[in-house]
Amino acid sequence: SGLVLVKNPHLDLMEEDVLYHLDLGTKTHNLPAMFGDIKFVCVGGSPNRMRAFAQFMQRELGLAAAGEDVADICAGSDRYAMYRAGPVLSISHGMGIPSISIMLHELIKLLHHAKCRDVTIIRIGTSGGLGIEAGSVVITDTAVDSSFQPRFEQVVLDDVVVRSTELDKDLAEELLACSRDIADFPTLIGHTMCTYDFYEGQGRLDGALCSFSSEKKLEYLRRAYEAGVRNIEMESTAFAALCGLCGLKGESCRFHLL
Amino acid sequence: SGLVLVKNPHLDLMEEDVLYHLDLGTKTHNLPAMFGDIKFVCVGGSPNRMRAFAQFMQRELGLAAAGEDVADICAGSDRYAMYRAGPVLSISHGMGIPSISIMLHELIKLLHHAKCRDVTIIRIGTSGGLGIEAGSVVITDTAVDSSFQPRFEQVVLDDVVVRSTELDKDLAEELLACSRDIADFPTLIGHTMCTYDFYEGQGRLDGALCSFSSEKKLEYLRRAYEAGVRNIEMESTAFAALCGLCGLKGESCRFHLL
Repeated sequence: SGLVLVKNPHLDLMEEDVLYHLDLGTKTHNLPAMFGDIKFVCVGGSPNRMRAFAQFMQRELGLAAAGEDVADICAGSDRYAMYRAGPVLSISHGMGIPSISIMLHELIKLLHHAKCRDVTIIRIGTSGGLGIEAGSVVITDTAVDSSFQPRFEQVVLDDVVVRSTELDKDLAEELLACSRDIADFPTLIGHTMCTYDFYEGQGRLDGALCSFSSEKKLEYLRRAYEAGVRNIEMESTAFAALCGLCGLKGESCRFHLL
Repeated sequence: SGLVLVKNPHLDLMEEDVLYHLDLGTKTHNLPAMFGDIKFVCVGGSPNRMRAFAQFMQRELGLAAAGEDVADICAGSDRYAMYRAGPVLSISHGMGIPSISIMLHELIKLLHHAKCRDVTIIRIGTSGGLGIEAGSVVITDTAVDSSFQPRFEQVVLDDVVVRSTELDKDLAEELLACSRDIADFPTLIGHTMCTYDFYEGQGRLDGALCSFSSEKKLEYLRRAYEAGVRNIEMESTAFAALCGLCGLKGESCRFHLL
């Protein structure tokens, strides 16, 4: 049916669903009227960048004059920022799996309550590249954990549940085809490694703590490259797992800055 | 000596240390002049709340007229917000362990470069209470993980390193003594449980996914209470581990809202 799925039998029994961190709710807002026509959701870490992206989409879609402002739909909360440009929603998610997970739980319920159909979600932003040219864009085929495994281990109460982190292969190919029309952005499909820590978890030598040698770091990153990893960030496994379970066609495109 | 420790031999070899997510650095800023006299650092999730807290401290310390504004020291970055009021620094850290960890690595290096001495760090904010009165404040003696163990498992490259999550017991008692002067805030010392997930990890029945029954949730929360847990949040184990390793006297005080 193309609808967004929620997998929670308790939700139907609730009189009101408050999306706390988005400052939206089923009794306070008419979610089908506000969001029913959304077809694309783009998410990224930084609120300023997601605002700039919504302004860019407005111009690209011919919806607003240059310089016209977009309003933050979640202005009542400073946890996340949300903007829309026609059928495109642009939302920030902060940094790391716990932060993106809260946003995704509430976004998925939002799209469900709004009765949206055939929604595509794309994560955009920056990441650290591995053995690729600076300025490259990596489209993720599979998100992997710090042991290079395609899995997201989620603690549910005190059980560990293992979830798949496959992303939509057709969408990845479609995005790769689009990239051919744009000069100056080398684009490739590869695995994306997701870590819980930026400094020690990604082998950086400039954190407040660092217990490994530069040789050990290089040996680890070499093994990651051999396992197919082309970039490293902090949200992809949770993003892939949650979108996959809830029937959202998802992809992740990250720009390798340095 | 009371100095803040960094445990990274590579740092001494670096010509410049860029604190990326704070938009500060050792070559672009005179960190000892800007921060050398800092004695207290208060951190919390929300940027708006940490701004309000800095304004409150300015008034309490007689440093500014009511309504006078404070400037965001990290205005060039939208990852975190930082304000100061005399010897007190007030910084936001976003939600979850990965987000607070990035901030703490850069904050610890900042205090180290600034040659600060005898710094006390206190996490403030809200949390979910467990078997306690609404409106209570929980001062954490020990942060525990979702299995109620006083440990922080940190993935360093692909190794798991286990770190202690003890907080400063004297500081906890000192804060508890302060609370006796303030009416209307029941205050207690207890364990704080830290989870990676807000919905499924904390037994909430209103996420986009929920695979457990309300009975199973209650049984888990009962076991947590019996293990000494009095509140649940998403940053305390990483906060305790990092502060402890770097010689920062740390405490966490959380307000139980509901």
